Amino acid sequence: MKLFYSPGACSIGIHVILEEIGKPFETQLVSTRDGSNKKPEYLAINPKAKVPALLRDDGTVLTEFPVIAWWLAKANPMSNLIAVEFEAEARTLEWMDYLCGTVHPQGFTRQFRPANFAKDAEDEARVVAQGKALTEGYLQVVERGLAGDPWLLPSGYSVADCALFFITNWASGRSGMTLPPKLARHQAAMMARPAVQRALAREAKAA
Amino acid sequence: MKLFYSPGACSIGIHVILEEIGKPFETQLVSTRDGSNKKPEYLAINPKAKVPALLRDDGTVLTEFPVIAWWLAKANPMSNLIAVEFEAEARTLEWMDYLCGTVHPQGFTRQFRPANFAKDAEDEARVVAQGKALTEGYLQVVERGLAGDPWLLPSGYSVADCALFFITNWASGRSGMTLPPKLARHQAAMMARPAVQRALAREAKAA
Repeated sequence: MKLFYSPGACSIGIHVILEEIGKPFETQLVSTRDGSNKKPEYLAINPKAKVPALLRDDGTVLTEFPVIAWWLAKANPMSNLIAVEFEAEARTLEWMDYLCGTVHPQGFTRQFRPANFAKDAEDEARVVAQGKALTEGYLQVVERGLAGDPWLLPSGYSVADCALFFITNWASGRSGMTLPPKLARHQAAMMARPAVQRALAREAKAA
Repeated sequence: MKLFYSPGACSIGIHVILEEIGKPFETQLVSTRDGSNKKPEYLAINPKAKVPALLRDDGTVLTEFPVIAWWLAKANPMSNLIAVEFEAEARTLEWMDYLCGTVHPQGFTRQFRPANFAKDAEDEARVVAQGKALTEGYLQVVERGLAGDPWLLPSGYSVADCALFFITNWASGRSGMTLPPKLARHQAAMMARPAVQRALAREAKAA
């Protein structure tokens, strides 16, 4: 298997999941900063021009963070990265969709790529501020909804926590925000996991 | 079960799924146009202030289009709205995540709610044009990826088609865009389904 990722992108969450599973995998850097994700070579792999993408052993590519995470967890049941119970599985997907489909594109993309939203260079500060304000609201929804201890779900550690990890990492890092208490505890618990440390170290080396 | 929806919103896709399943359900209008989705009564149901939301028979609420769709399909296997096979299930989720997590928020939200992006009233036309250009690109990705006939997936009609339905409906309707050929065929096939006609008629009556 091969993960296409960009250092600092949301793909770190899938990188962590691969480390948690522990089977051999390769990584290929596709920098979204220098636009490598929009080059023909990469569009042939993922026409959506996004990371993460996962090249699987049968040669097919899977895209979209929540689906790659869900597929990896279900294909590797011994790793216990998603609850077997139907309702808990639904809640895992529900959190990933909110984090990857709302918090990321509406909150953080405005902060990290303001030029994609702004009228002109002068307008970018407004877009960043709007992204930060939206993110503050989204993080409160997550803080209030976090039902496990320290994990998102009472059913235990799951791929949804790996999605939340890239969010808390962005918020407390690049965005310079202060995490609400439960999210800060969640981040600390993630940072203590060897799989997280290994993924961060590999991406730091490549960046 | 009760569906919280807004006429013309993406919730029409879940409305169609409920009609396909055919079990009794209620609908409750939560207009996103007049801001009812941000009132305390609705925030108590869905703190994310979004439709669709599904109140289930056990009193719990499920949110996020792809997850509601997946849950309804899995909980009602006799309706054949999602493939039983693991890989086809993954592809169903993958399409829904793209349509609901990229095409909708990046392409259509810019067109339908430009004030959420623009610097000022004068800047809104730029945002709408940007949304339309992004949507054109996204629709080409879907057109090229559409692998069934006329449905999205070779495994047959699924909840992913109900997600694509709200997209083609928006594109050819409110956005005034011309659908590429496969998407136009898909839309025609959807419009021929009695479940689609019933959902559209109920929303038209309520609007």
